[in-house]
Amino acid sequence: MERKALSDDVLHRLKAAAGTGGWKDDEKEIAPYLVEWREKYRGATPLVLMPANVAAAAEIVRICAETHTAIVPQGGNTGLVGGQIPSADGSQILLSLSRLNRIRAVDPRANTMTLEAGVILAEAQAAANDAERLFPLGLAAEGSATIGGLVSTNAGGTGVLAYGNTRELVLGLEAVLPDGRVWNGLSGLRKDNTGYDLKQLFIGAEGTLGVVTAATVKLFARPHAVETAMVAFGDVEAAVSLLNFAQGHAGTITAFELIPRLGIEFVTKHIPGTRDPFDRAHPWLALLDVSLKRADEATATQLLLADAASAGLVLDAVAAQSLAQREALWKLRDALSESQKPEGASIKHDVSVPISSIPRFIDEASRAVVAAVPGARPVPFGHIGDGNVHFNVSQPVGADKELFLARTGEINRIVHDIVHALGGSISAEHGLGQAKIDEIVRYKDAVALDLMRTVKRALDPLNIMNPGKLIRLP
Amino acid sequence: MERKALSDDVLHRLKAAAGTGGWKDDEKEIAPYLVEWREKYRGATPLVLMPANVAAAAEIVRICAETHTAIVPQGGNTGLVGGQIPSADGSQILLSLSRLNRIRAVDPRANTMTLEAGVILAEAQAAANDAERLFPLGLAAEGSATIGGLVSTNAGGTGVLAYGNTRELVLGLEAVLPDGRVWNGLSGLRKDNTGYDLKQLFIGAEGTLGVVTAATVKLFARPHAVETAMVAFGDVEAAVSLLNFAQGHAGTITAFELIPRLGIEFVTKHIPGTRDPFDRAHPWLALLDVSLKRADEATATQLLLADAASAGLVLDAVAAQSLAQREALWKLRDALSESQKPEGASIKHDVSVPISSIPRFIDEASRAVVAAVPGARPVPFGHIGDGNVHFNVSQPVGADKELFLARTGEINRIVHDIVHALGGSISAEHGLGQAKIDEIVRYKDAVALDLMRTVKRALDPLNIMNPGKLIRLP
Repeated sequence: MERKALSDDVLHRLKAAAGTGGWKDDEKEIAPYLVEWREKYRGATPLVLMPANVAAAAEIVRICAETHTAIVPQGGNTGLVGGQIPSADGSQILLSLSRLNRIRAVDPRANTMTLEAGVILAEAQAAANDAERLFPLGLAAEGSATIGGLVSTNAGGTGVLAYGNTRELVLGLEAVLPDGRVWNGLSGLRKDNTGYDLKQLFIGAEGTLGVVTAATVKLFARPHAVETAMVAFGDVEAAVSLLNFAQGHAGTITAFELIPRLGIEFVTKHIPGTRDPFDRAHPWLALLDVSLKRADEATATQLLLADAASAGLVLDAVAAQSLAQREALWKLRDALSESQKPEGASIKHDVSVPISSIPRFIDEASRAVVAAVPGARPVPFGHIGDGNVHFNVSQPVGADKELFLARTGEINRIVHDIVHALGGSISAEHGLGQAKIDEIVRYKDAVALDLMRTVKRALDPLNIMNPGKLIRLP
Repeated sequence: MERKALSDDVLHRLKAAAGTGGWKDDEKEIAPYLVEWREKYRGATPLVLMPANVAAAAEIVRICAETHTAIVPQGGNTGLVGGQIPSADGSQILLSLSRLNRIRAVDPRANTMTLEAGVILAEAQAAANDAERLFPLGLAAEGSATIGGLVSTNAGGTGVLAYGNTRELVLGLEAVLPDGRVWNGLSGLRKDNTGYDLKQLFIGAEGTLGVVTAATVKLFARPHAVETAMVAFGDVEAAVSLLNFAQGHAGTITAFELIPRLGIEFVTKHIPGTRDPFDRAHPWLALLDVSLKRADEATATQLLLADAASAGLVLDAVAAQSLAQREALWKLRDALSESQKPEGASIKHDVSVPISSIPRFIDEASRAVVAAVPGARPVPFGHIGDGNVHFNVSQPVGADKELFLARTGEINRIVHDIVHALGGSISAEHGLGQAKIDEIVRYKDAVALDLMRTVKRALDPLNIMNPGKLIRLP
């Protein structure tokens, strides 16, 4: 599609629609919106628009449709695949939802909450907590990430195992369509079979089909307590067995994180104040959170560990007896990425496979990577309860960092080919954005890609919604 | 769109594609496919096609696309809104998925199962049970309803409160698109953010966007036991309070069914062997199922009832102490519809509202109906844990049955207007089909209807997929 340059007239009309305090065009003020926090993606724009209400957002999109102006929606700018960063040619305007940040309603009896796109996740969690409810979406960037971005990327995070991805937490949506009309699909209903479930189009669409302006989300009963345990295994197969066993046990398993021997060694070597909780160097560990609804369930984790030991499912186990012990165990998991840095360069993959295929995936990918780069050190870890493995590969000891990183494409290909052969996904939770828009074409069914293009063309015939992200039109 | 008559040539080609044993054109043999079991919807067709594999189904759809022949997909023919019944003019062919009935895979370690569209729900449940897992979808028609129909109607049923609607149970789909291509979206992944979630287009679309041929669904740990209790309240507000309280308690609340005084009176009067479990005639009752994962949780229900009584949430409560007692309590709930028949005509509504609005909905709708038809007897009951009320209205005592039923449209309008004003849905779980395709236009946002038409036109530009169901094209 022919893209008109952003004329002064268009910019003027957009500023008027955004209103006083609703736009920025000073290069210095705009700069933070144009770079992703790891500085992997950089873009340019003459104008950042920050509408304060849905009507202003809709008017902005309407003007963009009329003038064929491309729009890049942005929330907290925490995305990892460049979906929120405009192109480098300055032809796209950036639409920040940051001022659309009201909590419109909290209904603890219905267990729902309606939030505007710009509400920060931590604030949403706090609002739920104030109403004595749990909003279970949680992730490292929760102090900056916003509801609109979380919905648009179908964010995963730490609550997926028990509560689902963001998609499963959304009951209703409000969005500005690519022609500037507002679709009001906000709803607190648990059951509604009156036609196509339109909200699903916008969840995980990375802003390519419209602009999410608000969402009604599910709330849950708060757990009485969360208990934490670390368990040790001889192989990954045993970890999957324990996961299956634990899910049939009392309490709710709300985290199940795999940690390899090498990961524990990196952490205890490089992160002050950490130590392996076991006397023996077990090949694999897993960190478990068990959420309990009542005080009298407080023996659930002990019982689980005892039963698992009786069934021969674990080599060893420790349960945290205090908040400090709990934090010490979680520190071992949370420091895994950081502890890889002193070991040199690392090539990372955010992939998923069916849970039953995790042992085979880790085994095959580890062998293949080491065969390609002798001495390379795989550190596969993460949310295996969701089938999601962060397959990070540290460079060989003493190798040249740049030479190792130069092989990133090759290593990605090796790992992704194995993921694909096992029916997995090359982007479990981060999305496609700019990062994987071409890589996905190698793996995704051609019919699926064509269906995606059909949907994109139908909803956004002018291709003004975040073009160059998620799906390429020929 | 111009619809060509079904020529002998087209019928001949379709029969050849379906293969030996893959079609029926004898009027008598076809008859059962053409009428809905309550005989509310009747259609006609010259040909029922029953492909035995996906390739044959795809070839049939391809021929239909080429010849602009309309297709009505049908599963177990248990739908309640006429979605599975062809038009009366004989211009549509019927595509039965009944022979596509293989269980392709059961993976208990991944907690997934892949089923073809024609697998009967009871068989799917049994296959899960054989693998020591739970497939929680359950409903009255489970002995006939098939996976394809359940997915295409996003079926609700008895497991929704704890496990979600069918939509939440589907991880992946395979479907024949309206042009005859096969989209393979089968996947056992819990996390996959590689583009639009295409399966959502087909779930609940009532066959208007393509033909579902297989699904990969979630399995769960089987509960150790399910306990049942009946509780009594002074008003519906108290029932909602108990629901909230119980969801924060130990165990998993897997059913929460409201029963009004009049319902209990109808059941105990007309259904032999039933009795009110309480000595006093309480205004409202609720039936609870509590699923327990371990034997040592067996006190959960007793504790819940004791705590609820201490908190002043219930007037009285009984817990079933045996399977016979459990069945006796459930009989009171299950016989509600049947017990209304001896009381004369009944006008029914399958609606949902936000859970917090259930008391207000029942109050307002009951008053409005009685104001319109003095002496009319509302019997609101059902899955209030899902916000889903079966708002049935029995005729006044001694009134003329036909005269009462003649006011169905008027009563529907009164009830649906109140549902709509409270942000509810006029079809909580049964869908639109033929039954509500026009009624929904009164209530659904015009932008939403237009979006639905946009999606329909994009995926099925020839309008051959179940035309006249769910959404009308101008």
